[in-house]
Amino acid sequence: MAVGETRFPVMPVIEGLRLGTAMAGIKTPGRRDLVVVEVPEGGRVAGAFTRNAFCAAPVTVAREHLAACATRGEGARYLVINTGNANAGTGETGLRDARATCAELARLAEVEAASVLPFSTGVIGEPLPMERLLAGLPGALQALDDGPAAWSEAGEGILTTDTRTKGASVTLTLGEATVTINGIAKGSGMIRPDMATMLAFVATDAAIEQSLLDRLLREAVERSFNCITVDSDTSTNDACLLIATGRGASVADGEALERFREGLAQVMTELAQAVIRDGEGATKFVTLRVEQARSRQEALDVAFTVAHSPLVKTALYASDANWGRILAAVGRAPVEAFDVDRVTIDLGEVRLVEHGGRAPGYTEEAGSAVMAREEIEIRIALGRGEQEATVWTSDLSHDYVSINADYRS
Amino acid sequence: MAVGETRFPVMPVIEGLRLGTAMAGIKTPGRRDLVVVEVPEGGRVAGAFTRNAFCAAPVTVAREHLAACATRGEGARYLVINTGNANAGTGETGLRDARATCAELARLAEVEAASVLPFSTGVIGEPLPMERLLAGLPGALQALDDGPAAWSEAGEGILTTDTRTKGASVTLTLGEATVTINGIAKGSGMIRPDMATMLAFVATDAAIEQSLLDRLLREAVERSFNCITVDSDTSTNDACLLIATGRGASVADGEALERFREGLAQVMTELAQAVIRDGEGATKFVTLRVEQARSRQEALDVAFTVAHSPLVKTALYASDANWGRILAAVGRAPVEAFDVDRVTIDLGEVRLVEHGGRAPGYTEEAGSAVMAREEIEIRIALGRGEQEATVWTSDLSHDYVSINADYRS
Repeated sequence: MAVGETRFPVMPVIEGLRLGTAMAGIKTPGRRDLVVVEVPEGGRVAGAFTRNAFCAAPVTVAREHLAACATRGEGARYLVINTGNANAGTGETGLRDARATCAELARLAEVEAASVLPFSTGVIGEPLPMERLLAGLPGALQALDDGPAAWSEAGEGILTTDTRTKGASVTLTLGEATVTINGIAKGSGMIRPDMATMLAFVATDAAIEQSLLDRLLREAVERSFNCITVDSDTSTNDACLLIATGRGASVADGEALERFREGLAQVMTELAQAVIRDGEGATKFVTLRVEQARSRQEALDVAFTVAHSPLVKTALYASDANWGRILAAVGRAPVEAFDVDRVTIDLGEVRLVEHGGRAPGYTEEAGSAVMAREEIEIRIALGRGEQEATVWTSDLSHDYVSINADYRS
Repeated sequence: MAVGETRFPVMPVIEGLRLGTAMAGIKTPGRRDLVVVEVPEGGRVAGAFTRNAFCAAPVTVAREHLAACATRGEGARYLVINTGNANAGTGETGLRDARATCAELARLAEVEAASVLPFSTGVIGEPLPMERLLAGLPGALQALDDGPAAWSEAGEGILTTDTRTKGASVTLTLGEATVTINGIAKGSGMIRPDMATMLAFVATDAAIEQSLLDRLLREAVERSFNCITVDSDTSTNDACLLIATGRGASVADGEALERFREGLAQVMTELAQAVIRDGEGATKFVTLRVEQARSRQEALDVAFTVAHSPLVKTALYASDANWGRILAAVGRAPVEAFDVDRVTIDLGEVRLVEHGGRAPGYTEEAGSAVMAREEIEIRIALGRGEQEATVWTSDLSHDYVSINADYRS
């Protein structure tokens, strides 16, 4: 099940940025499960990672290696990503395995081990099958290419319970130059990113200085991957990487920076929304917009409280305009001195709630007509400020329970 | 579906405390849906209510009337409770209806309207059917009785999606006197009380001064109804009332107070656990015990994060010892400077996690054997302090989705 359309675009070449995918048989034989991304010399890489305290071994090692790159004033040169096994909850063995993966790729590619960043996704708590993983690396290196097939194969090679590949691309005109931003992502369950979704890799040919690249990534993550939730569960492996090869136009300030910021937001929001459209068991794509809050955090708190309510999510699944459940969820959000008489709630174009109760003009027919749609917007105006936030979520269906109860994922 | 046994006890008489139930046809004809509780003159009543900002009209009026009683230095004399309609999200009309209900009962019973406390539970957002409700009051008054049948009928008359009546009773010996504590409760879905579960009424014949009664209720609620969750949704109508008729032994301090406190905790914890055993779609009764926390709040935060995780709840439903999901949920709990290497997680008698990963002696067989049980304990030791908390929850099953998606509740 998945909601709406998400087409994997034909990705333009980003010069010097190559991707190679292999079938290493990490969990399932005959599926793409190992991806290597090559960053050209002189490129810059920024990373945002899960805040889960039980973060996976590759997250720890990727952070260490990025710090080592920063110390040397260089960018990372390779990313190595496996699916089928998260290398999380694996203690010391997991750290050794993640480091050994980097070391082997570094040996084959003739770079420093600290120039390699490792990423894993899949089942938690089982040791990485190192023999098969390492045996797959030469094939992935051999397959390195910058064409659209390399991008779509990499998009496939990072999936777990996803039913679709997820990619997004924009090409911006900056004065006389053009700059491309391509991104791929994976994620379907255990989605309540607290830095980034499970895994997302975004690359551009723009030339961007490291500290600006870091800031651009942080800003874009806050408004995209940190604004989605399937099931409120933050993964141990979340990571979002932004690579700038530096071969294209420079992005430093002024209009070029603004245009780049917008383009990056577009790519990352599209990827984040694609994760929700492919949320486990999703039959609805829901946009929760909270307005007139005192702070953006307050708006986010209200939006996530509604987005996580199992009663709201099952009503969405049932296409039941059970507005009382939305009202109850808004009412339990952690908002200080909350005057509910000033709150309005709209379902699409239909006003549900005002003055603390059902809106006078509301009819069940009008509410049901909106709820029957696959894509639903709920707008909540708090009447106490000027800040706002938008969060995207899916519903809670029988398929969600089946996917997570019927087999180990 | 419900887990384990919950027997409704044969309630001893609490002298002067009478209950009367009627079939008013509020939502469904031919079922008990209207309950009146009579408190003798000189009794004292304490109340704890939902913190949901969209609280229901009866909650607002009950609070007002309790405040008026406090001003007059008297206890409330009547409670009137209807099921089938929550009178929530009903704005001004709802407040008028709740006040009119109190006024009519006050007229019939010849007391002040402010001596009557109203309670409602059921569907949100529909106006109370006042004609049928008011017409049912004389029958409920006529039925007033202090015997065990009156208690069990009242237990039945407050249910909504519950599949069982919920009652608990203890009789304490205080010196030469005995003191009885009886309680009834209802609740099955929208259960994440933030004061009390949907509705609970506890009465004793002890003589307890008002401010002590208020404190005893608050303390007991914190350790019982505020420690349960079915689905993280706090209701608009939560209320827990503690009535002391004052006809029995005095409870003021010393050993009598300690014994009473324990007895009250026992009754309220039993009622709270009965709500979880009857949680919507529940197939498991789960005790989450968090130890070695820096504060009780920290322990509660970790326990509720695990208890609300849809991935943990579906694994419990599947009897799948997917300990990685428990670890991931613990890891995303809001704990500052969290050193996961000090954390241990036990499932029943089986150690799952230590030193940041799977415990060395763990086997899938051992984990699965515990998960197959109907009653499961998960113990999480944080290794950073001496505070602890226990939370009770249920699993997330297909039946939960069916109950909440297949019809309007």
